[in-house]
Amino acid sequence: MASTTDLQTYIEEMCARIEVTLDALLPMKTQNPGVLYDSMRYSLFAGGKRLRPVLTLATVEALGGDVDAALPVASTLEMIHTYSLIHDDLPCMDDDDLRRGMPTNHKVYGEATALLAGDALLTHAFQVLGTLQTDVAAPTMLRIIGELAKAAGAMGMVAGQMADMENEGKQANAETLAFIHANKTGALLTASVRIGALFAGAQEAQLQALTTYAQRIGLAFQIQDDILDVVGETEKLGKVVGADAAHAKSTYPVLYGLDESREMVRRLTDEAHHALQASDLAAVRLHQIADWLVSRDK
Amino acid sequence: MASTTDLQTYIEEMCARIEVTLDALLPMKTQNPGVLYDSMRYSLFAGGKRLRPVLTLATVEALGGDVDAALPVASTLEMIHTYSLIHDDLPCMDDDDLRRGMPTNHKVYGEATALLAGDALLTHAFQVLGTLQTDVAAPTMLRIIGELAKAAGAMGMVAGQMADMENEGKQANAETLAFIHANKTGALLTASVRIGALFAGAQEAQLQALTTYAQRIGLAFQIQDDILDVVGETEKLGKVVGADAAHAKSTYPVLYGLDESREMVRRLTDEAHHALQASDLAAVRLHQIADWLVSRDK
Repeated sequence: MASTTDLQTYIEEMCARIEVTLDALLPMKTQNPGVLYDSMRYSLFAGGKRLRPVLTLATVEALGGDVDAALPVASTLEMIHTYSLIHDDLPCMDDDDLRRGMPTNHKVYGEATALLAGDALLTHAFQVLGTLQTDVAAPTMLRIIGELAKAAGAMGMVAGQMADMENEGKQANAETLAFIHANKTGALLTASVRIGALFAGAQEAQLQALTTYAQRIGLAFQIQDDILDVVGETEKLGKVVGADAAHAKSTYPVLYGLDESREMVRRLTDEAHHALQASDLAAVRLHQIADWLVSRDK
Repeated sequence: MASTTDLQTYIEEMCARIEVTLDALLPMKTQNPGVLYDSMRYSLFAGGKRLRPVLTLATVEALGGDVDAALPVASTLEMIHTYSLIHDDLPCMDDDDLRRGMPTNHKVYGEATALLAGDALLTHAFQVLGTLQTDVAAPTMLRIIGELAKAAGAMGMVAGQMADMENEGKQANAETLAFIHANKTGALLTASVRIGALFAGAQEAQLQALTTYAQRIGLAFQIQDDILDVVGETEKLGKVVGADAAHAKSTYPVLYGLDESREMVRRLTDEAHHALQASDLAAVRLHQIADWLVSRDK
C-alpha cells in the first residue's frame, strides 16, 4: 500500500481537477444577476476537503473506469454538499458565523442570497446530471440521479438534518444518534461511492461491497468529527470548538465516552477494509482514504 | 371551443388526479422525522391552482400522449413550485405570514423546518424523475430532468427571484422587469409545457410552437398577477393587497400603467393562441387555459 504522503498528493491532484471541473460547470460570472453566482462560487471554492467527489473518483479508479469522464458527476456531490453547508449555517439553523476559518455565506452575502445560492447549487447538480454528454447509458444516469436525490432529500440528508435539529437540547438515545449520522452525513458519503460504482459499471457484488465500505467510513468519519469537536483546537479547525456541546447536541463522545468512541472508529475502519478485501477491487486509494479519515486532525 | 365551465370541471378533475399522485409520491407520514413530511405536505396540499401540472397534462393530452403515465412527471412541477413558495415566504425573503389565506409554512412549523421542507420538496422532484418506471425512453427522461433543473435554478427561477430581490425598492427598467418575469415565473411555466411535450414525444416544430405559447401565457399570467395586486380585493386573494407596492417592487402597472398592462395581457394571449393554431395540435384545453389566465380574478 502506498504511503500517506502519496495519498495527500493524490487528493491534491484530484482536488485540482475537481476545482477545474466545478469552475467549468459554474462559469456564469457575467450573467445577470451576478451576485448569485458570486455567492455560489464563494462557498464552492472555500477550500473544503472535497471528500465526496474524491471518493467518487477513487471508486471509479478502483473499478478501472474513466476518471476524466466521471469528473462532472463527482463534482455534483460537492455542489450538494456545499448547498447543505450554506443552509446549515443560516441563522434559523446552526447560526454559524465561520466556516473553515472564513465568514459563512450569509455573513458575506446576506441571508436571502445565501438561501438562494444554496437552492441554486442543489438544483445545478441535477442540471449537470441531466445534460451531461457521456458514454454511460441513459438508464444508468437516471439511476445515479435517483440515488443522489434520495441520499440528499427527505429520505437522506435532509431527514438527518431535521432529526438532528429536533434532538437539539435533548440527550438522544443511541438509535436516534445512529439515525442522525446515517442520514445527515452518511447518506451522501455512501452515495458518493455508489454513484462512482454505478458510473464505472460495477457488478452487483462490487456495489454491495463498496456500499458497506462507504457506510462504515461514513459513520467513522462522523464519530471522528464528534471526537475532534471535543479534543480539537480552535486554530486547527477554524471554528469555535465545543460548538456542538454548547448547543447541547448529541454526539458519540457524549453518549459513549471518548475511549469507546475511538474504539468504534477503529472497528468501523477495519470493517471498511474487510469489505474491500472481500471484493476483487484494486482499491488502494479507498483503503488509504479509510485510514486517513481516522488519523486526520481537522 | 368548449365553455369556461367545462374548463373548470377539467381543471378540478386534473387537480384531483394530481393530488392523488402527490399523495402517493409523498406518503411518508410514518417515517422519522415525521414533522418534516407534515411540513412538506402542509404546503403541497394547501389548495393551489395546480397551474403547472395542469399545463403539463393538457400538453400531453394535446399531443395524444398518455395522461395517466404523465401524472408523476406533472406532479414534480408542483413540488418545485411549492418549494419556491415556502422559501419565498421566509422572513429573510418576502416575510409573508399568509399564503392563500392560510398561515405560511414557517409560521406553522418554524423557519428551520420550512427551509428544510423546501429543500426536500425540490430534491424529491428529481428523485421522482430519476426513479420513475415509464415507457418513455431514458434519454428523454434525462432531457426532462435537465429542462426542469435549468428552469428552476440559477439560469431560471432562482435567477428571477434574485433579480427581483436586488431590484426591490428601485424602479426597475423594462428590460430588468422582463428578465425578472421571464425567469421568476416564466421559466417554470414554460418548462411545464415543454416537459409535457417532451414526455409525449412532440416533434421539434410542435415543441417550438408550444414553447412560444407557454412563454406568452407565462408573461400574461404574471402581468395579470401584477394587475390583480393593484385592483384585487384582499378577500378574494387571501393575502394583503398592495404588498408588492408596499415593498416598492417593480410591476407592469407601475411601469406601463393599468390600461397598457391590460392591453399587453390581451396581445400576449392572442400570440399564444396563434402559436397553437399554427401547429397541428388539438389543443382545446391549452386555448382555454390561455383565456382563463386573463379572465381570472384570483
